[in-house]
Amino acid sequence: MFGPGPSNVPQRILEAGSNPVIGHMHPEIFEIMNDIKSGIQYMFQTQNNMTLAVSGTGHTAMECAIFNTVEPGESVLSAVNGIWGERAADMAERIGARVNTIVAPPGGFFTNAEIEQALSKYRPAVFFLAHGESSTGVLHPLDGIGQLCHKYNCLFLVDSVASMGGAPLYMDQHGIDILYTGSQKVLNAPPGTAPISFSERACQKIFNRRTKPVSFFLDLSWLANYWGCDGKPSRVYHHTGPVTAFYSLRESLAVLVEEGLENSWERHEKVAEYFHAGLENMGLKLFVKEKKARLPTVTTIVAPHGYDWKEITTYIMKTHNLEISGGLGPSVGMVLRVGLMGCNSSKASVDMVLMALKDALKHCHKSKV
Amino acid sequence: MFGPGPSNVPQRILEAGSNPVIGHMHPEIFEIMNDIKSGIQYMFQTQNNMTLAVSGTGHTAMECAIFNTVEPGESVLSAVNGIWGERAADMAERIGARVNTIVAPPGGFFTNAEIEQALSKYRPAVFFLAHGESSTGVLHPLDGIGQLCHKYNCLFLVDSVASMGGAPLYMDQHGIDILYTGSQKVLNAPPGTAPISFSERACQKIFNRRTKPVSFFLDLSWLANYWGCDGKPSRVYHHTGPVTAFYSLRESLAVLVEEGLENSWERHEKVAEYFHAGLENMGLKLFVKEKKARLPTVTTIVAPHGYDWKEITTYIMKTHNLEISGGLGPSVGMVLRVGLMGCNSSKASVDMVLMALKDALKHCHKSKV
Repeated sequence: MFGPGPSNVPQRILEAGSNPVIGHMHPEIFEIMNDIKSGIQYMFQTQNNMTLAVSGTGHTAMECAIFNTVEPGESVLSAVNGIWGERAADMAERIGARVNTIVAPPGGFFTNAEIEQALSKYRPAVFFLAHGESSTGVLHPLDGIGQLCHKYNCLFLVDSVASMGGAPLYMDQHGIDILYTGSQKVLNAPPGTAPISFSERACQKIFNRRTKPVSFFLDLSWLANYWGCDGKPSRVYHHTGPVTAFYSLRESLAVLVEEGLENSWERHEKVAEYFHAGLENMGLKLFVKEKKARLPTVTTIVAPHGYDWKEITTYIMKTHNLEISGGLGPSVGMVLRVGLMGCNSSKASVDMVLMALKDALKHCHKSKV
Repeated sequence: MFGPGPSNVPQRILEAGSNPVIGHMHPEIFEIMNDIKSGIQYMFQTQNNMTLAVSGTGHTAMECAIFNTVEPGESVLSAVNGIWGERAADMAERIGARVNTIVAPPGGFFTNAEIEQALSKYRPAVFFLAHGESSTGVLHPLDGIGQLCHKYNCLFLVDSVASMGGAPLYMDQHGIDILYTGSQKVLNAPPGTAPISFSERACQKIFNRRTKPVSFFLDLSWLANYWGCDGKPSRVYHHTGPVTAFYSLRESLAVLVEEGLENSWERHEKVAEYFHAGLENMGLKLFVKEKKARLPTVTTIVAPHGYDWKEITTYIMKTHNLEISGGLGPSVGMVLRVGLMGCNSSKASVDMVLMALKDALKHCHKSKV
């Protein structure tokens, strides 16, 4: 599975997830949750006490972030350079926020000057940015943006579903106030849990809200208690956690800790460079022009001229049993997307994909010119 | 695990869930989702096309039901005879509904006359009722309530998390408009997916809303497309479904189909009667006085006079390695709760629990009188 996610799940993680179900309020489960919390703190490079995993996918974490930090009538700024900025804007609109966007064309990103201009113009309470824009293959630079947000008294909310573990990110150093990811990308766990963390600054805002968040299920004051993050001596039943998904998530975090975060970043970078060189040697073009803005986990290739991209992905699935995918949202029809995440990020995987692509370009007819 | 849920997961279902992860938009997954849909239609006894599983727990399904059917400012009536009616009221309030409640003491339930009086007084758009009130052990009668709701142009929303598969319920015949349950009770699958179904009448209201539901993730128009319920030829990416949880859910539905729904109902009823007789023979009292209103899946026992209920549950966990639990919400301190659901509903399980209880009453001191 070399699509933009989910990625393949190693046997070790699958096996962890098939351990017997026990009660979601048993002390053993609380220990597992504590391990998960520590693992996320390491992965996110944060000291935030308010660190946990949402019982749901990346979308659930995105809603958890927005529902808790934004009150109706507040201003939200979303950086739209692909589908994720659009979704964040849609979610904030649904709960009655005043939403503004800055827009870059697919494959593009924003300078700090552009971001500062928008912050000063719209004075948002929350600024949303996707670190890894998986629909276009862009890795957004992060340096200095957190500081800008804080200058304008705004929380910095970052989506790292596609990038986390595959590219450098330091939550605390980067001044990120809310950060989340998914289990099914670099972590190689099954989809169904989503790590999330909130800074002290974010908690200050959240725990002084005038209105309740629209969702009981995602209300941080409940989640904080369930995850032992609120300093209270006992935990109250909130919802039934997906315990088997917690087993898998803990195992996947253990795999990351064993390799080491820096090693994982470096491996993804090296493999991506090797892959990108191979593509260019074949005469294919990378969709993201600036090298430093290329997401190492999800590569976007300009859809080869004269070919039908659907024929290519279908051929590769049928003949090579490999999944690669077309565009998403604003990049539909413009790109092919290849995800090499976690255990799939290896030179051997690259060689398989390059061979399959070569073969496809030979066998697929130039059906449209 | 004889608490009110989750229940033990048989090896067969755990194994299904440890199959390799494949893409959430692969044709094989769509087939599995179609199987799940058919299984739910059978389990719910409904012909509703709008039948699917939410990627989350019972709470997520509860929010899915309320978020989609209720618009801000609309009137909602919740029947509160335990924790679930309170939660539904809280959720509806969070999204700006005008919420009224009818309240019965823990262990009690409502007559159709009481319900009709409230429907006529408050004219709600949606009426919430828990079929199985797991906090108090009440199985609520359903006959005639759907008809009353429709007489007052109101949608009938039923929570069957604790009762589904363990007690008779016919969604279509009972005139239920929205029905949901969880995977981790009678179905014996791990927590993390939640079957839900919407009647034609509910869909009429939902698809003619003036406002968007507050949640993108739970927006039925997106979910309907993802689950192939909207008649459109192609499915658009909405969120990454928890595919391994879908494998387990399909397997658990297959187990139910193999046994037969009526057989499952009958088994739960017989085992509950055997259990209740055994408890009364020991001199213990059942919390729910009316026999026909006793939930066969979760039994509430009046906390034995003079004992500390926590000492009893702790003793049984420590000495017998069995989980039973105390009360929840309004029943805290009043009851012990024992869940016998799905594969755990057997006379052998009853004998284990009765023995453990006898032993506990002998060994636990009458610590408070």
